[in-house]
Amino acid sequence: MHSEFTGTYTDLYQIAMGQALYRDGQAGRRGVFDYFFRKLPFGGGFAVFAGLEEVLAALVDWRFTAEEIDWLAGQGFDASYLGYLRQLRFTGEISAVAEGEVVFPTEPLLCIEGDVIAAQLVETLVLNILNYQSLVATKAARIRLVAGDAILSEFGLRRAQGPAGVPAARAAFIGGFDSTSNVYAARRYGLRAEGTMAHAFIQWHGNELAAFRAFAAARPDNTVLLVDTYDTLGSGIPNAITVAHEMRARGGRLRAIRLDSGDLAFFARRARALLDAAGCEDVKIAASNQLDEYVIRSLRQQGAPIDIYGVGTSVVTGQPDAALDGVYKLAVAHGEPRIKISESLAKTTLPGRKQVHRYIAGDGQFLGVDGIAAQDEAAPVRLVHPFEEHKSMRTAGIASEPLLRPVMTGGRRVGAPPPLAEAKARAAARLVRLPAEYLRFENPHGYKVGISEALHAQRERLRRQRNQPGEGT
Amino acid sequence: MHSEFTGTYTDLYQIAMGQALYRDGQAGRRGVFDYFFRKLPFGGGFAVFAGLEEVLAALVDWRFTAEEIDWLAGQGFDASYLGYLRQLRFTGEISAVAEGEVVFPTEPLLCIEGDVIAAQLVETLVLNILNYQSLVATKAARIRLVAGDAILSEFGLRRAQGPAGVPAARAAFIGGFDSTSNVYAARRYGLRAEGTMAHAFIQWHGNELAAFRAFAAARPDNTVLLVDTYDTLGSGIPNAITVAHEMRARGGRLRAIRLDSGDLAFFARRARALLDAAGCEDVKIAASNQLDEYVIRSLRQQGAPIDIYGVGTSVVTGQPDAALDGVYKLAVAHGEPRIKISESLAKTTLPGRKQVHRYIAGDGQFLGVDGIAAQDEAAPVRLVHPFEEHKSMRTAGIASEPLLRPVMTGGRRVGAPPPLAEAKARAAARLVRLPAEYLRFENPHGYKVGISEALHAQRERLRRQRNQPGEGT
Repeated sequence: MHSEFTGTYTDLYQIAMGQALYRDGQAGRRGVFDYFFRKLPFGGGFAVFAGLEEVLAALVDWRFTAEEIDWLAGQGFDASYLGYLRQLRFTGEISAVAEGEVVFPTEPLLCIEGDVIAAQLVETLVLNILNYQSLVATKAARIRLVAGDAILSEFGLRRAQGPAGVPAARAAFIGGFDSTSNVYAARRYGLRAEGTMAHAFIQWHGNELAAFRAFAAARPDNTVLLVDTYDTLGSGIPNAITVAHEMRARGGRLRAIRLDSGDLAFFARRARALLDAAGCEDVKIAASNQLDEYVIRSLRQQGAPIDIYGVGTSVVTGQPDAALDGVYKLAVAHGEPRIKISESLAKTTLPGRKQVHRYIAGDGQFLGVDGIAAQDEAAPVRLVHPFEEHKSMRTAGIASEPLLRPVMTGGRRVGAPPPLAEAKARAAARLVRLPAEYLRFENPHGYKVGISEALHAQRERLRRQRNQPGEGT
Repeated sequence: MHSEFTGTYTDLYQIAMGQALYRDGQAGRRGVFDYFFRKLPFGGGFAVFAGLEEVLAALVDWRFTAEEIDWLAGQGFDASYLGYLRQLRFTGEISAVAEGEVVFPTEPLLCIEGDVIAAQLVETLVLNILNYQSLVATKAARIRLVAGDAILSEFGLRRAQGPAGVPAARAAFIGGFDSTSNVYAARRYGLRAEGTMAHAFIQWHGNELAAFRAFAAARPDNTVLLVDTYDTLGSGIPNAITVAHEMRARGGRLRAIRLDSGDLAFFARRARALLDAAGCEDVKIAASNQLDEYVIRSLRQQGAPIDIYGVGTSVVTGQPDAALDGVYKLAVAHGEPRIKISESLAKTTLPGRKQVHRYIAGDGQFLGVDGIAAQDEAAPVRLVHPFEEHKSMRTAGIASEPLLRPVMTGGRRVGAPPPLAEAKARAAARLVRLPAEYLRFENPHGYKVGISEALHAQRERLRRQRNQPGEGT
């Protein structure tokens, strides 16, 4: 899980194309590539951008190891090309949207300018990191939206897609989770590790009360007792209350009980009543078991008195989508803007170096409009719909802020890596500025992303050129 | 991605429970835990077990590093417990079903016996590896079932859940894929790396024919040309034919063209006709773009002349399920069989050390019945439905084979790790013996898993004991 993002963490075709470019004398020629996605995940109205700092860290260290070069030699690549790869480093320029930013389809979120071979070789790595972490951060943000100020803990390592469980904890934190059960990730990312107890511990003891006492003795500062092993109301909660009283008599406190099965709304209410009646108003209630944003919303709507939610599979796998469809497309070649033509205008890319402008309403809320312009343009005063050209809107006089900032120059970071909490705080702060109609789960309003008239004109010029006979051949 | 499966690759509660067990003098006491899953993925009729050899490799190396111990000290764990963890190794016994075996819900697939603290600490790691790799191997097997003898290449790294893309290539291979685009995984697992070219390469050149020529010159032994950048029929295929002729004139061969958009059945037929008419009968057709088992089945039913399928997101993320629901449950404590009681009998576990028997029909096909028995029983002559006790079936006189074999003893592997191709061959060979009604995608027949009368009686005895007043408290 630690940075194994070496040169071969890529698709074979990147290395094959690199050889063709190298033989053609293209090494050192600069290209510009944009990362963007086309479809919001989860049928939602927004996405949260995450993974950027892990991309930058990977690129700083990026290289082909001697072992990798040897292996590639066995795959039939040219010795002179491999000699070039051996010394190749990522020395390019990157501008990007900040981690935790609220983002939308079509807009470039990360733009890489550099040696075309290196920029092509790192495509897979960039997509691999950003697609997954943005998926999970978005899911986490949706869960946070409905969880109010309840504690959200990520419990997903056992159902994660193998080693994905590690960056999942990072991305869930950015999206709004408080802690993780994943000790490896907590250590790696400086997250708060959280844990309760398992049924097996109680089975091992055979006696629930004895098990609770043993656990409380071993973890007095953070005791959470799992109460549904045998009979939640008949034994689990009464035994927990006994232990809570014993802990209090020793000057301690039972932090919480955990419900992991059955009707969580029913059991939480009954548990709260039993705890309160026993003078355990300070004992919190944690719940887990196949939770996602819809179940938590329902529990909250029912007024279930749950203070802590443990969420696993749904957040770490980004169910049901399981993938964000981000792509990485060439925008400048040989100093000239380029596009990828498609019969579908929606799949035709945007040429040249670009900037994304977010328009801000008078009350400081986001207006619901982002504009993509050429990098050297001012914030556009009129936007054209990127795919339905008869639609346009005036944005003159509306405040805006640019979203793409330089984050790497000459292969070096611009500034030190910010603390992860900064990305989390940004996500929370930006989501507060996104009007409710973009936040709702059912038929969210479509956030508008337009392109400037200049960018539109340039794209049309390139499309016409490309469609002239002979050009495409 | 390389083995970072150290001690902290777990949930915090495992470490917390370990401290309680350690303080209670339970270190060194032996427990038995079973891994099994409850629900077949993808609404299908079977699953393919994968990940075993990676679990064993992880357990051989498993330990807490000095850095991990230091970090845990900062989390408030006891010094004496941490001293114990520092020297703790996995020294247990494991029996397991072979990798590539066709498996079904409820049956134990991996049984760990060892120091209860160690066995509990490795739970998360075992679940993390087996759940994901079995999910992907099962998805891959479904795709292989419909793909006939076409070449299947895994192209998913860019849409994988971060580092999951690496074990995904391994599991897809077991399930029936031929190769991967993932160079890192190919190198790590000894898989065949496969690659074509990207649209960006053609955009970079600006001229499709020039790009094709440059690519063919650089990769003459394995040239696959992407023909849909501008106009598949108008320029892509004619240019590819030009290059195919040029390569042939030099004594070479164009291996394939690749279609990555549009109606693949239509374009494949037109491409085949154009290639054949130009004397390029030996040029294969590769297709990609959001493929899964349903799309490939449809393409094959339409007779689309596609020789190579590149499958990405669906196989590496196991869409739409994205997770297998495998669990790890205590079966023996203090030398006595244990169960986890649940109000739902389907969630009550099976006690003791067990064996799984597969019944074989006279023609060598699988009968559609597996039986779970106590480890020391012979193959059961009558099976009881595990959750609907009024259902039973006679299995006397039917041939059977045991599925669980010792794979680790005293923390050491029994035998050297088999080559990965063995697991792949096993999956193929076992799926051939599974009757068609279990293979179909729509309403597959339910493969029966029963329990022996002795195991059933023991479970009922334990349930009755547990339900006596006072026992659960």
